[in-house]
Amino acid sequence: MTIALLTDFGTRDPYVAAMKGVIASRCGAPVADLSHDMPPFDVWGGAWFLRAVVPYWPAGTIFVVVIDPGVGTSRRILAVERDGRTFLAPDNGVLSLVAAPPAVSVENESLFLPDGSATFHGRDRFAPVAAAVANGMPLQELGPRVDTMVTLDYRPPSYDCARAAGTIVVVDRFGNLITDIEAARLPFARFTARAGAHTITRFARAYGDAGDGPFLIIGSSGCIEISMTNASAAELLQLGRGDRATIVPS
Amino acid sequence: MTIALLTDFGTRDPYVAAMKGVIASRCGAPVADLSHDMPPFDVWGGAWFLRAVVPYWPAGTIFVVVIDPGVGTSRRILAVERDGRTFLAPDNGVLSLVAAPPAVSVENESLFLPDGSATFHGRDRFAPVAAAVANGMPLQELGPRVDTMVTLDYRPPSYDCARAAGTIVVVDRFGNLITDIEAARLPFARFTARAGAHTITRFARAYGDAGDGPFLIIGSSGCIEISMTNASAAELLQLGRGDRATIVPS
Amino acid sequence: MTIALLTDFGTRDPYVAAMKGVIASRCGAPVADLSHDMPPFDVWGGAWFLRAVVPYWPAGTIFVVVIDPGVGTSRRILAVERDGRTFLAPDNGVLSLVAAPPAVSVENESLFLPDGSATFHGRDRFAPVAAAVANGMPLQELGPRVDTMVTLDYRPPSYDCARAAGTIVVVDRFGNLITDIEAARLPFARFTARAGAHTITRFARAYGDAGDGPFLIIGSSGCIEISMTNASAAELLQLGRGDRATIVPS
Repeated sequence: MTIALLTDFGTRDPYVAAMKGVIASRCGAPVADLSHDMPPFDVWGGAWFLRAVVPYWPAGTIFVVVIDPGVGTSRRILAVERDGRTFLAPDNGVLSLVAAPPAVSVENESLFLPDGSATFHGRDRFAPVAAAVANGMPLQELGPRVDTMVTLDYRPPSYDCARAAGTIVVVDRFGNLITDIEAARLPFARFTARAGAHTITRFARAYGDAGDGPFLIIGSSGCIEISMTNASAAELLQLGRGDRATIVPS
Repeated sequence: MTIALLTDFGTRDPYVAAMKGVIASRCGAPVADLSHDMPPFDVWGGAWFLRAVVPYWPAGTIFVVVIDPGVGTSRRILAVERDGRTFLAPDNGVLSLVAAPPAVSVENESLFLPDGSATFHGRDRFAPVAAAVANGMPLQELGPRVDTMVTLDYRPPSYDCARAAGTIVVVDRFGNLITDIEAARLPFARFTARAGAHTITRFARAYGDAGDGPFLIIGSSGCIEISMTNASAAELLQLGRGDRATIVPS
Repeated sequence: MTIALLTDFGTRDPYVAAMKGVIASRCGAPVADLSHDMPPFDVWGGAWFLRAVVPYWPAGTIFVVVIDPGVGTSRRILAVERDGRTFLAPDNGVLSLVAAPPAVSVENESLFLPDGSATFHGRDRFAPVAAAVANGMPLQELGPRVDTMVTLDYRPPSYDCARAAGTIVVVDRFGNLITDIEAARLPFARFTARAGAHTITRFARAYGDAGDGPFLIIGSSGCIEISMTNASAAELLQLGRGDRATIVPS
């Protein structure tokens, strides 16, 4: 039963290390670093990160997600269970793509660190609550049930027989432009992409297969990506997150 | 009984990985990464990092701190116990804010890696000594007792009824300017900060509460911070570590 | 029996976190992060990283190396055992400095994730195979034996009584220029280095010993380094990986 941490705290500051200390003080669960390098306040990026990762973790995993621009305000902290996994996160949409109501609003102050701050709930609330869950506490003891969760401002892609229209949702460190258009849902076998002023017609099965220039590839999430071999498609094409992409038959 | 690592080695080079290998070869203790992203040789930053983190870790934790510009010179390696936690660090002030003499000067060469280098004591001395401590070796077997430790060149803040005068001691990744002035020690309830040419009068309870412009907030260490919502106060105000800050009643 | 991960995935993207999830789903072995900050596709850097690290890890360790510009092409995945340690890596030379044939070509598809991608073998092949090895599966069940491995394009240094000629193989985060010339193999006790247009005559035993200007030092791998105290020799001298270095008696 691992406690898996996803934050925007970076690793230069003591924030993650303090959270790990609280967890180690209160339970014996192993801690796994998913990432602490989400850009600050990047709720959208955290949501897509979780979507790519959660299905690969076993039931019993406790995901602690602290991307929390609203820390200390009236935003709620949610605990949700789904498929045997537990999620703790601020109610800001970061769980949108991996969980759904009902949830629990974490309000049981007896679990929080005494004299906690208004600025660092990761240490003062998320960490001790995660330890309590790891120690077997049922979610309903964390607080009252809630039937709504904030959702991400996100329009899913549309598919019809002439085209699929979607969005570049992630740019990874390799410069791959990852769309939300699922290859398996395309009603045509050969296709071309349009994004910005660009038309990409080449298709490759693997990143290393494709020679020069941008190409389309089915990425590891099953979605269409615009990529380059050993180079950044994002830089070359000057495209990024939020840009629209259209797939048409070719 | 975790071995918790704090270094300035970064994660691109093999230094941390070699240390972890030595530890794994010699004991079964779990290893936790506190941070390896301290700026190179930043003894001051390491001291404040430890101050923010150590109280949250349980007794029994072994902190291994390798921020060590003097590696291979005659600087000592210290082992200190405090509140049940053990610290291994070079004697350069990095422990100033979390531990105090008496300490042990780690000189028992039988614990070091054979044929060790003069340049990488993290691997050749700190790691095997940490493993020995994890395996139960008492500190007095590591070397002779010493009654002095190098301390940080640091002037603590002053408080009187008209003002508190302190220092910006940390700038975190969010650009928060963290002073060493403890809110609980201020003899007035409403206050204004002066730092550089700036006067900051607004106060917020949470980072997300405050709208535009810089504001004061009580940070997670209980000290006054100058912050901005979703922006960097350090960049806007062109202030940084070492700059003085004064708090006056308002 | 630790599973030790070395990748060029960075920590901002979900790739490492997905691999850790697959491992946690399939075995109980602890996972250690060696580094995920290899520059993208840097096979050479990975090879030298492993050389510096592997000898310090105990027998039983399973090294999973995913620096894999050829993912999804016909390049093989290799499993090799050496001195009780197991290595899983693409067959691109990254194991050159730590292992040698015979190896196994990992082709047992029953071990791979079902419906795996062509772009993310780290998650779909390396991780589940590592878990299988951790669970005790002998390497010969992973696939057929192979007697060749791709080797790094690398010319080892030459030594004679008048000079040693080698290469700067690594520049670390401190700007140390690390050559492949082993100090123990020099047939003279006092020496001078030439690299680019520079001649470095000073020698120091420790980084902190040496005052201003570049100096030579025997680094933690036993090789000659060109270094500076609290500064970057690489930047000052404008030297880097691949540049030649010559050591002559002085």
